[in-house]
Amino acid sequence: MDQPPASPPPVAPPPVVPPPVATDTTHTSIGFADGLLLECGQTLAPVEIAYRTYGTLNAAASNAVLVCHALTGDQYVAEPNPVTGRPGWWASLVGPGKPIDTDRFFVICSNVLGGCMGTTGPLSSRPEGGLWGTEFPPVTMADMVRAQAMLVEALGISRLFCVIGGSMGGMQVLQWAAAFPDRVFAAVPVATAAHHSAQNIAFNEVSRQAIAADPDFLAGHYWERGVVPARGLAVARMMAHITYLSEAALTRKFGRRMRGGEAGPTLFDDVFEVETYLRHQGNSFVRRFDANSYLTITRAMDWFDLAADHEGDLSAAFTGSRTRFCLVSFTSDWLFPTAQSRAVARALNRAAANVSFVEIASDKGHDAFLLDEPDFTRTLAGFLAGCAEHAGLGNE
Amino acid sequence: MDQPPASPPPVAPPPVVPPPVATDTTHTSIGFADGLLLECGQTLAPVEIAYRTYGTLNAAASNAVLVCHALTGDQYVAEPNPVTGRPGWWASLVGPGKPIDTDRFFVICSNVLGGCMGTTGPLSSRPEGGLWGTEFPPVTMADMVRAQAMLVEALGISRLFCVIGGSMGGMQVLQWAAAFPDRVFAAVPVATAAHHSAQNIAFNEVSRQAIAADPDFLAGHYWERGVVPARGLAVARMMAHITYLSEAALTRKFGRRMRGGEAGPTLFDDVFEVETYLRHQGNSFVRRFDANSYLTITRAMDWFDLAADHEGDLSAAFTGSRTRFCLVSFTSDWLFPTAQSRAVARALNRAAANVSFVEIASDKGHDAFLLDEPDFTRTLAGFLAGCAEHAGLGNE
Repeated sequence: MDQPPASPPPVAPPPVVPPPVATDTTHTSIGFADGLLLECGQTLAPVEIAYRTYGTLNAAASNAVLVCHALTGDQYVAEPNPVTGRPGWWASLVGPGKPIDTDRFFVICSNVLGGCMGTTGPLSSRPEGGLWGTEFPPVTMADMVRAQAMLVEALGISRLFCVIGGSMGGMQVLQWAAAFPDRVFAAVPVATAAHHSAQNIAFNEVSRQAIAADPDFLAGHYWERGVVPARGLAVARMMAHITYLSEAALTRKFGRRMRGGEAGPTLFDDVFEVETYLRHQGNSFVRRFDANSYLTITRAMDWFDLAADHEGDLSAAFTGSRTRFCLVSFTSDWLFPTAQSRAVARALNRAAANVSFVEIASDKGHDAFLLDEPDFTRTLAGFLAGCAEHAGLGNE
Repeated sequence: MDQPPASPPPVAPPPVVPPPVATDTTHTSIGFADGLLLECGQTLAPVEIAYRTYGTLNAAASNAVLVCHALTGDQYVAEPNPVTGRPGWWASLVGPGKPIDTDRFFVICSNVLGGCMGTTGPLSSRPEGGLWGTEFPPVTMADMVRAQAMLVEALGISRLFCVIGGSMGGMQVLQWAAAFPDRVFAAVPVATAAHHSAQNIAFNEVSRQAIAADPDFLAGHYWERGVVPARGLAVARMMAHITYLSEAALTRKFGRRMRGGEAGPTLFDDVFEVETYLRHQGNSFVRRFDANSYLTITRAMDWFDLAADHEGDLSAAFTGSRTRFCLVSFTSDWLFPTAQSRAVARALNRAAANVSFVEIASDKGHDAFLLDEPDFTRTLAGFLAGCAEHAGLGNE
């Protein structure tokens, strides 16, 4: 190998992280004064649900597509994100002439319960003053879906043409289909599972421990002191980010390329490009996400187990369902591997449900569901076109 | 699902971690006053190498087996560890009548350069006073192997019958075979690779960031204040531990079992058994490992790239080698997947070396190399018996 440098390794100071700005932004939302009775038995009130819509609801209110976002996603699915300035997270799929065609469908996306982009969560104010913070009650995937159902109803929609989402968004799709079978004509759970696996729980737990280890976390009371556990949250995000990518994708994108040539081993500086990339991912995340929200939402994911809600029989969750399902997984996704989608497909088959299952060849890992994957785009466009015909949706 | 509790989630205080005790233990070692010229160009002097031996060196000094340990392993391969009190880490393979038979072989295992179990590393004293700490020079896999070569020579051994090791230990085996082909009769690289992949570097980087994020890290100067970055090091270990296990192993061991029944989602308490297990792994690790050693050794692993040392041609590392190789991988190991061992096997074939390659069916992940895997045991016993015959080692 080329000679590493003779000098002792420099030890870089911890990165300086700017404070979060997500909370400064105003979001479109709708308020529910009576709130929501949560699975834990507590009533959360009032409840504010921040959401975005695209396209026009038809006269029969029969063309609505609900898009469910993933752990760190938000409602800005098809327009620039007001916090990051980046394009909508599914702008490649949602828009005029795109598979989720806003010339044809009325698309809704809302920030999940417990989130930090305008929907009630740990950063929201309590009726009795102050923020919820660590007192925010535990919410579940079912609670998140019930909040979405309140929003959908408030928008005058009694049945959704389609519910679609990837990763945690896919969990919500499954929960929608199980909880409200008559209100979902078609369901597209992407890169997801009917329960969080032990490995997924383990990764989430390391994220939580990284946040807790940050002295600025202050046992969750950081917001009272105007600080954020930026370093812990960045470490959590860095680790999670690895799980979103495949080994092949990391190798293709970065391999063993080094910054500015052969820098040589140092104790602490970033030597390899993949390190610089991860540090950037971690640091930009803390500007837009709240730590207590991260804890709240990862807990909801870990807790999700649709079979357990039906005495261990996943197919019982879908008995009698007339929803048309299209399950999608990606070959190189090791966070939500194909086997987990296949288990859902088998349960749906046992329930005699209408189900398609497509495994898309991709080496991009879990992230593939957010990226431009032509086979996924084609699958989705074809499935939605077929469903629209069955639903009697014209091209009006 | 069963109803989660109505009470707001308790937020546990961060765990209290006892200080490390590894440095209190005295280890058998040998000193080299002139030290070692490192790849970085610095001379590290003096160098102390802590080691253990088992069995008896024969008159011809031809029956020595060098065992190389992994990232967080040590020299206590076949006897209780004086720090943890636990059995030797490869006690199942090394001992009288075992595959690495101490009735027949003279087994040597030394703590790696940069380690914290008696060999010179960041916790060692500098000639000019104080500890090395962050001033410890960057060491490479080649440096570690040269330090081992000094030890082996000092023990009066000019050629090793066998060099064996798993994970980072396997990297050392490959480095031994490449650097000292005439001093290695047989080589057994287990669950390893000829370079660290982008994904492996990424995981190591998150470990390093977790350590750096701990306020007690003090930019590596924690030892001057008598503290240790225990929380950061624990998070690093927790994450690494997930990568040592397969998804199947985690599911079999823990699945979604909860502590004390259905505890319900909480923001911060450990709810699932897998969380309790990981917390335990993290907390017990910090009692025996030094953070600067962890940084130093992970850097050496990341830096390892045997092909790059030979203009990108891995087979050139083994040209003319007469060493007998037995490569072993495990089917469910996703940290050092079989493809990486196969790449080494192909390079050895191109170099016309003597190579066997065995992929062992196991669902235990990378950890399989440390666990009781009968097929691995049989493979190893058979390979060593054959080599002993070829080497003219009698049953004297």
